[in-house]
Amino acid sequence: MSFPVSDSVLSVHVDLGSRSYDISIGSNQLDQFAETVAKWIPAPASGIKKVAVVTDRNLAKTHLPAVVNSLKSADWQICEIVLEPGEGSKSMAVMQEIYDQLVDFKADRGTLLVALGGGVIGDAAGFAAASYTRGIPFIQVPTTLLAQVDSSVGGKVAVNHPKAKNLIGAFYQPKGVFIDTATLTTLPERDYRSGLAEVVKYGMILDADFFEYLEQNIDALNERDPEVLRYVISRSCRLKADVVEEDEEERTGLRAVLNYGHTFAHAFEALCGYGVLMHGEAVSIGMICASRLAERMGRVDAELTQRQVDLLSALKLPVELPADAGLNVDAILDRMKLDKKVLAGKLRFVLPTRMGHCEMVTDVTEADVRAVL
Amino acid sequence: MSFPVSDSVLSVHVDLGSRSYDISIGSNQLDQFAETVAKWIPAPASGIKKVAVVTDRNLAKTHLPAVVNSLKSADWQICEIVLEPGEGSKSMAVMQEIYDQLVDFKADRGTLLVALGGGVIGDAAGFAAASYTRGIPFIQVPTTLLAQVDSSVGGKVAVNHPKAKNLIGAFYQPKGVFIDTATLTTLPERDYRSGLAEVVKYGMILDADFFEYLEQNIDALNERDPEVLRYVISRSCRLKADVVEEDEEERTGLRAVLNYGHTFAHAFEALCGYGVLMHGEAVSIGMICASRLAERMGRVDAELTQRQVDLLSALKLPVELPADAGLNVDAILDRMKLDKKVLAGKLRFVLPTRMGHCEMVTDVTEADVRAVL
Repeated sequence: MSFPVSDSVLSVHVDLGSRSYDISIGSNQLDQFAETVAKWIPAPASGIKKVAVVTDRNLAKTHLPAVVNSLKSADWQICEIVLEPGEGSKSMAVMQEIYDQLVDFKADRGTLLVALGGGVIGDAAGFAAASYTRGIPFIQVPTTLLAQVDSSVGGKVAVNHPKAKNLIGAFYQPKGVFIDTATLTTLPERDYRSGLAEVVKYGMILDADFFEYLEQNIDALNERDPEVLRYVISRSCRLKADVVEEDEEERTGLRAVLNYGHTFAHAFEALCGYGVLMHGEAVSIGMICASRLAERMGRVDAELTQRQVDLLSALKLPVELPADAGLNVDAILDRMKLDKKVLAGKLRFVLPTRMGHCEMVTDVTEADVRAVL
Repeated sequence: MSFPVSDSVLSVHVDLGSRSYDISIGSNQLDQFAETVAKWIPAPASGIKKVAVVTDRNLAKTHLPAVVNSLKSADWQICEIVLEPGEGSKSMAVMQEIYDQLVDFKADRGTLLVALGGGVIGDAAGFAAASYTRGIPFIQVPTTLLAQVDSSVGGKVAVNHPKAKNLIGAFYQPKGVFIDTATLTTLPERDYRSGLAEVVKYGMILDADFFEYLEQNIDALNERDPEVLRYVISRSCRLKADVVEEDEEERTGLRAVLNYGHTFAHAFEALCGYGVLMHGEAVSIGMICASRLAERMGRVDAELTQRQVDLLSALKLPVELPADAGLNVDAILDRMKLDKKVLAGKLRFVLPTRMGHCEMVTDVTEADVRAVL
């Protein structure tokens, strides 16, 4: 059983050879951002430090000033690139705007790009960093719990195609990830809980002790206690980093374990219309469906599912589809067959074998999937 | 002194760890393309082989049918993506068209992309391959001498921004490069000679024996003799691969040696208006300027410059700016100061020290540059 350590700033090292980097997890440290940057990025030979900070209109009012002031006081020349909030900014058109602003700023291969925001900002700004002059250094400053424990770790960056999410992108690792729990104090309730669903997922797929820790710290989680959050975020990042270190570009199939609950979740999100169910809410329901599927196949007992239902419910996450969603079982199945994890038409799911361990299971029967829906 | 080997298909291995690949150099082998592909790409687990072939309107009439027929007879499902010839196809708008066609083809991460064409096709299709679903396997089939000895080797792919060439791109290695000298028989005279300038460059910067071989095979080169071409292409690819293996992403500065003659050439091309001087023609003149600059600085004697003048002239390449170009020395200097190789305002040039060896030289005086212009 692990306990939070007492240091105020935790650190997770992601070991990817020449692409290795650190994740720093602190509280109320945004005004010392430039000091951490100096540790991660060597001073340019030219002596001129240029940085483009990409963020959205909401964050421009809340956390951007602290970041910009810190950089200014360390003599950085700064270009602020402020995007509209929301998924619409993950488009090629917005990418073009970012390129234009970088060109106007005379950004070159030594210019740093900082992504300050949630998953949308991290993905879009990350792809801009990956592709501008074939790659410029970038640092993630994720400001939502979901981005802190999931999308900012692992190097996946992308924008959407009108017909498919995340279709255009790259695997491109940042020079560092700077996480501050203070950004979570301004996060709307549903966004916060959506992030907690991914945290619970890490316990389920990789760490039974961590799952137990979450069960024992429900009040602190619901109150967004900074110390508990620092531990929970760092443990989640460590667990994801362990997987990414083994399978950086999703070649071996190992990284697929991170998709526990996601085959169901993607179908639910798509069919409800994006935005009706938040991603973490869909994952919460999807994990319960996957666990029930494992039960039906005799892989786990009902108690394992019940522990998830109890923890997710205590964290105020949904564990079944809303009654008014009106989703049709056939439509859900059709949608799941479009999933990347479907191979030659066969349904495949990441299913638990015991607390802290999941596996990719092939040839699941359609009848079993129908039964749990 | 090296001589051509007698095998009809030569092979160059590019050693980049998990990103290693082979370059195959043959003659009249396009109709056996699929057999080489089978060696480079494992059969997909699904059993369904899908390939998108990106080419231009000219090549669609000449060499595309042989490639497509070979793939069809090996049971590949084929999507032909035919772009307009010319630099205009290296744009984000064309990139969007390629993505759309890949989506319509239901291309997934197992779909192969083949780039059949010159540098424009290789760069644009290569960036599409690098970014579609964060990277799909791709094979280069370069059809110009310039692409065969230069742009198809080394993994640089990119499109242009309205304000800067190759601004948006990636380092993304192909699974293989398939070169057929038969594609050179249909190449216009100036395009062919433009490629020869880069070949001469490899001798100058890295291999004195190879330079001597070129001097001794001028007639065969002018007649596009397939056997001599196979050797010349394979030696050029080997020399470039040696550099790329040491400095895959242009981090160490070693790769900069490939830019011999290019600081001058880029300025000439830009100021004449793109298309007036072909790239290789500008490089030919640029190498002579760089060699004269090295002479002035006491690094080499006049005989070294003369050997280059003689060889380039025998290959019918220009060695001085056309009289009617009317370029102003101040304008050339201003333009060179915009070059990526300028560091903190100081002029830097790749200059010869002896036949087969060049170095990056910093703090060249403006007076010396003016003198050679």
